[in-house]
Amino acid sequence: MILSDIVKHLMQNDNIGIISHVTPDGDALGSSAALGLALERLGKRVVVLRNDRLPSKYSFLPGSHLAVDCEKAPFKPDILVALDCGDVERLGSGVMHYEAAGTVINIDHHLSNTMFGNLNLVDTNAAATAEIVYQVIKLMGIALDLDIAICLFTAIAADTGCFRYDNTSIVTHGIAGELISIGVKSSEICRRIYSLRTLEQTKMLGRAIDSIKLYHGGKTAIMKITKKMMQETGCGQEDLEGVIEFARDIEGVEIAALLRETDDGEIKVGLRSNEYADTSEIAASFNGGGHRKASGYTVGGPMDAAVETLLDRIEKILRV
Amino acid sequence: MILSDIVKHLMQNDNIGIISHVTPDGDALGSSAALGLALERLGKRVVVLRNDRLPSKYSFLPGSHLAVDCEKAPFKPDILVALDCGDVERLGSGVMHYEAAGTVINIDHHLSNTMFGNLNLVDTNAAATAEIVYQVIKLMGIALDLDIAICLFTAIAADTGCFRYDNTSIVTHGIAGELISIGVKSSEICRRIYSLRTLEQTKMLGRAIDSIKLYHGGKTAIMKITKKMMQETGCGQEDLEGVIEFARDIEGVEIAALLRETDDGEIKVGLRSNEYADTSEIAASFNGGGHRKASGYTVGGPMDAAVETLLDRIEKILRV
Repeated sequence: MILSDIVKHLMQNDNIGIISHVTPDGDALGSSAALGLALERLGKRVVVLRNDRLPSKYSFLPGSHLAVDCEKAPFKPDILVALDCGDVERLGSGVMHYEAAGTVINIDHHLSNTMFGNLNLVDTNAAATAEIVYQVIKLMGIALDLDIAICLFTAIAADTGCFRYDNTSIVTHGIAGELISIGVKSSEICRRIYSLRTLEQTKMLGRAIDSIKLYHGGKTAIMKITKKMMQETGCGQEDLEGVIEFARDIEGVEIAALLRETDDGEIKVGLRSNEYADTSEIAASFNGGGHRKASGYTVGGPMDAAVETLLDRIEKILRV
Repeated sequence: MILSDIVKHLMQNDNIGIISHVTPDGDALGSSAALGLALERLGKRVVVLRNDRLPSKYSFLPGSHLAVDCEKAPFKPDILVALDCGDVERLGSGVMHYEAAGTVINIDHHLSNTMFGNLNLVDTNAAATAEIVYQVIKLMGIALDLDIAICLFTAIAADTGCFRYDNTSIVTHGIAGELISIGVKSSEICRRIYSLRTLEQTKMLGRAIDSIKLYHGGKTAIMKITKKMMQETGCGQEDLEGVIEFARDIEGVEIAALLRETDDGEIKVGLRSNEYADTSEIAASFNGGGHRKASGYTVGGPMDAAVETLLDRIEKILRV
């Protein structure tokens, strides 16, 4: 069984590198820190290799003492564990360790995983890579302490929308319950990940909501963010995370779109749908891409022309 | 053991009334419907007695065929089961059935429960009354079907902020996992309870956010909603649920206040705190009340005077 093979390799080797994908999310960061801390408890030499700086919203995560830039690894890992990473390209500068390591262990939950490791454990039923890491830690016989529990909980909460998304399973809830009983404060972690905003982000949300207009008898919601709004609120692209959901969450809306004017006058478009509409078809027709319920593309301006063209395209796939 | 006594009474009697508190929330509605459906499966004559119309956001709940107004009960219940209800006053018109029933079973999770039943099962560790109802149903030997599961899940999700609040325990997660494995769609239910808004509610949220001003070096956030804003967006008091959270969720804020001008020119004030501030002290000094982290009061207008007085009061309890 691949899980026990992986555990055996980890138990038998002493120099272990852990890496995840570039632009890491909560699952990437939390899984890596949890596994790093667990291996450290066993007396291993562990390093968590990073491509990017820790996003400030995850600054509370324990295990930061294990993290170093890929280029500055203090030792050559015998084993490289890649977590939540679908392919080698997404390892970023970590590819140097991928090439140098004796054994590469690839643990992930993405269907698109290219099985690039020597040992591959890809469980697409797992809501988060952290669910698999939880099993690895348990099988190594390491008791979960509060630091490890916080890392695992954060990773799972990040990939499940704090247990709201449909990927949340009986396994997810089982693990979350155990982590809470160890002392994890779910409200604090969910707030840090999902609802905490800077004043600027909050003000931008208000302006974005103010811009919402409904079309097609209320089935389409359009949100517009101009260059001027970005300048006035002092916000960048990264401050718009989740804003489009306030358009999607209007009663009766099937398709929501957020159009944002970039500095060079192009229009970046994000699309979301609620039930039946395949937004990736719309995005593809503008040379963009994504999934059924979340996709995007970029077109030339001006804003109003981009809105008109999009509305025409949406009208074709809405049900009466 | 009280739980098995309750189960014995329910199994041995055939005419059962279920009631909850006036202005019912998700736990009250979901617990009542779940228990009603379960007893119906056993061939009992069951009625869910109501004081209020079903709030539209809970219109998806199964079991509505069991509900009738308190005054229109089709039979006299031998047993009245009160769910999620702290005292007799909160039964509303249901008090007539309370007085007439042979046995009153009181199942609740509120510390303030007055133990008004003949059999009282008050578990303050339960995140929701539905957690206790789940146990009752299991002990009666009734298999959970999808309808019952949806009712229980909705009740638990409503009282735990979809598993975000700190009342969420290992028991809560254990039950939620089982309900999902029966087929409950968590994303759909959490969306209906928490994020779905009408266009009017969404627009009001945008305007409320726009009104936010920070004071005391960013520790206090004040949101103002005027009579004019209510008229322009077509919103009523019930459309402001959750709006204050967008002020509390600003980084650095300890106390958030939402001031709303009523039709007769008074100012209704809602208060929230994040960590240490006891807002109930502030509310009490204006003859209001509530809990540490959530409280409220009403004062005379105009708005600006109410804001000034409140800011003075807040300043006294903020830490430097």
